[in-house]
Amino acid sequence: MPTDVSRHTFTRRDLLRYALAAGGVLLAGGAGGRAVRNAVRRDFDAARTGALLDRVEPADSAQLPNIVLISADDLGYGDLGCYGAQAIRTPNVDRIAREGALMTQAYAAAPLCSPSRASLMTGRYPVRTLVTMPLYPAASFMDLVFNVGGVYPYGVRGIPQDEALLPELLQRRGYRTALLGKWHLGDTAPHRPTENGFDAFLGAYFSNDMEPYAIFRDDELAIPPPVDQSQLTPLLTREAVAFITANRERPFFLYYAQPFPHVPLHASEAFRGRSEAGLYGDCVEELDWSVGQILETLRDLDLDERTLVVFTSDNGPWWEGSPGGMRGRKNLPFEGGFRMPLVARWPGVIPPGVVSDAVSMNFDLFATCLGIAGVSLPGDRIVDGLDLLPVFKGESCEGHETLFYYKGNRLLGVRRGDWKYLRRHMTDNGGYASLHQGPFLFNLARDPDESYDLSASEPDVARRLAMLLDEQDAIVRANVRGWL
Amino acid sequence: MPTDVSRHTFTRRDLLRYALAAGGVLLAGGAGGRAVRNAVRRDFDAARTGALLDRVEPADSAQLPNIVLISADDLGYGDLGCYGAQAIRTPNVDRIAREGALMTQAYAAAPLCSPSRASLMTGRYPVRTLVTMPLYPAASFMDLVFNVGGVYPYGVRGIPQDEALLPELLQRRGYRTALLGKWHLGDTAPHRPTENGFDAFLGAYFSNDMEPYAIFRDDELAIPPPVDQSQLTPLLTREAVAFITANRERPFFLYYAQPFPHVPLHASEAFRGRSEAGLYGDCVEELDWSVGQILETLRDLDLDERTLVVFTSDNGPWWEGSPGGMRGRKNLPFEGGFRMPLVARWPGVIPPGVVSDAVSMNFDLFATCLGIAGVSLPGDRIVDGLDLLPVFKGESCEGHETLFYYKGNRLLGVRRGDWKYLRRHMTDNGGYASLHQGPFLFNLARDPDESYDLSASEPDVARRLAMLLDEQDAIVRANVRGWL
Repeated sequence: MPTDVSRHTFTRRDLLRYALAAGGVLLAGGAGGRAVRNAVRRDFDAARTGALLDRVEPADSAQLPNIVLISADDLGYGDLGCYGAQAIRTPNVDRIAREGALMTQAYAAAPLCSPSRASLMTGRYPVRTLVTMPLYPAASFMDLVFNVGGVYPYGVRGIPQDEALLPELLQRRGYRTALLGKWHLGDTAPHRPTENGFDAFLGAYFSNDMEPYAIFRDDELAIPPPVDQSQLTPLLTREAVAFITANRERPFFLYYAQPFPHVPLHASEAFRGRSEAGLYGDCVEELDWSVGQILETLRDLDLDERTLVVFTSDNGPWWEGSPGGMRGRKNLPFEGGFRMPLVARWPGVIPPGVVSDAVSMNFDLFATCLGIAGVSLPGDRIVDGLDLLPVFKGESCEGHETLFYYKGNRLLGVRRGDWKYLRRHMTDNGGYASLHQGPFLFNLARDPDESYDLSASEPDVARRLAMLLDEQDAIVRANVRGWL
Repeated sequence: MPTDVSRHTFTRRDLLRYALAAGGVLLAGGAGGRAVRNAVRRDFDAARTGALLDRVEPADSAQLPNIVLISADDLGYGDLGCYGAQAIRTPNVDRIAREGALMTQAYAAAPLCSPSRASLMTGRYPVRTLVTMPLYPAASFMDLVFNVGGVYPYGVRGIPQDEALLPELLQRRGYRTALLGKWHLGDTAPHRPTENGFDAFLGAYFSNDMEPYAIFRDDELAIPPPVDQSQLTPLLTREAVAFITANRERPFFLYYAQPFPHVPLHASEAFRGRSEAGLYGDCVEELDWSVGQILETLRDLDLDERTLVVFTSDNGPWWEGSPGGMRGRKNLPFEGGFRMPLVARWPGVIPPGVVSDAVSMNFDLFATCLGIAGVSLPGDRIVDGLDLLPVFKGESCEGHETLFYYKGNRLLGVRRGDWKYLRRHMTDNGGYASLHQGPFLFNLARDPDESYDLSASEPDVARRLAMLLDEQDAIVRANVRGWL
């Protein structure tokens, strides 16, 4: 019996079915991709971002609080102690929540990696950034299918150069910036981390299940394949501690994008077999230990009151992991695919024990970080994010009144208040995605696991929400990139 | 905006993808189907069932309790008040539970209609009956794909004639037997209800989403398409009351196979908009009303103490409906696909308020009903079911030590005690089914939503359960039909 359960197993028949599936993806994406590609050729505008960045004024270092933004990969809403997990112990993330704020209604901007990360970096819905699907290593089979096949709009191989990224803006402001872990926004020039605002980078361009998997330091190969992934968390932790220590006298922005618990799962010797939730739990407990090392370093260096620490995830759990009783997982427009843990700590600014049900999305962290750094939001493009600091502080309970659920470049649903409307009811029941039903209207307050469609009994609500979708579609169709 | 949300919507692209999917099904099923077909040619044995039925001795009518077996269609574990539903009121099913027994760990034998019903009728795993996939109307497109394409083993178009069905055995014993509602075990001779032990039949051969949908009475067309499905529950209820009333002086077996809440959802005028769970909830509340009419009739005719009433469902919820916080839905080997509500009431025999966590499967109802009727279990074939009456009575907590999870003719998993082992981890995350992972080991007591694989931390348990699967596979391969 294989014990390395986290690897993919392919039979010849699987490959044949996979090829058929890829054909389906081509058919599905090709037409939409072409339409967006044509619209985008008109809208691609690299010069404006140069001008925008040039307008960011460097600040006095002493006025800039540090920012540590930690994102797990594929971690579910129910996988942390502070969100109800029983079988996994996460005392350090729980401590962030206890000493700061915990959001119960936080969302990722997409139910999968690349687009969710594109939003985190730009403050905008993924569709505006054109990164709407997972990116694959250049020259891989899937890159061939997606790029050559025309599924990616305008053949985007990474975050477009005309996007203004959080690290670029903070760098101009005077921050020392680092990305440790997973980038997933491009592996070819000019899409790589050091070309996009990061002074330092140690990590991988892709998910840890994409071959060839290698670790780069500042875009130079550091660890060639095969990488011993059980050493990744210790490595990244040492690097995080070293980065914080080296920059203790100046403002820094650390984006720690943990590669786990994305499959394949790996924990170091010290953590293997420690949790009651198998290797998945071991990974999360090691990740929590890593968070603890960062918190300890901040305390030891007396940086606690000068540092905002945020912890979240990029999308719902995939094969393992708990969506916390909600419906759906990664890839799906149900809450389990989008709803994220989000906790934030900043002693002296965020009071302990704030619990907020304000509705937020990960692109809010872009606006929040810029707000803290005193950088204005880009005024030359639509920014979808809000500054969450007043919410974290417990001073406001104002989140988003309306949020949209995108899958790829398709707008699938909208949440407004407690109402959620899905145009298409994508399968989570083993059927083929082509066999769909809908639309469906759920009341998330009364029916948190999205079991009962109310569109027939609440036709006015359904109609209003359908109109919101049509409006959003029209706005995006008219101006994909959201240039102002 | 369409308000009839329960209909399928197809675009041309959907149809193309669907054709691709059908191709995948052919590839996947063809080989396995051929193997089983060849094995079965040797094993098909119609004569033995004739002999078996001839050995059933008619009993004195006064000694035979009545049996009312009610099954909903696609109703989830969490859709009934007695299983925790808040938005749907089911006072009558709740009353069965309150005045009788409620099972917390009951399973369907399959996560979809036809095979689950084949087990209910035969007391055996679906694979032994060869009905392992949904049956489609003769000469429909899917019938062509499945039958001509060789996906169905030995081209089975219905329950094989060599199976001994519960109604056949009860009929020989002296019961008046009726099926009201959905059969789904064949629409051509000799697979139809009146050819398989039912004295009376009113209902449909297929699911209510399969075209052409028509209602038959005793295998004669009664209501041609298009059927006004909003009148189905009132019609079947009147028929149930009439059947019970007409047979109050003699033992009867009523199998009431409700067509809802399978999509398309329809409730009669009196129930539309009544629940807080939309049309789905309205359907379930009307179904509950129907159960109430049956309970009232039994009381009015003074049959309460002479009648076992059982209520269950055939598989987990599909597009709507609540799996009660568990993972997965219809079609999937997770608990949400297999775990069923099961309540039973027999005043004077089953004491009120029994709640049992004994592990059971719907084929146990075959053995339970035969036990009540004093009919021996067939000795010439493997019967997988157990008599649950001692459990219903609260005298025993002995259920199955080991249960298997089949999808089609593939053995996917096993439960033993609190451990559940899945060989393949079928996708419930929107990915293609060919991209699977596994095996996975879950502890259902500690991790009821199947989030954490323990196969690495509990390798001995995983190995033991994997061996159980290999053994079961070997037994079935050597003797598909389970003839003794």
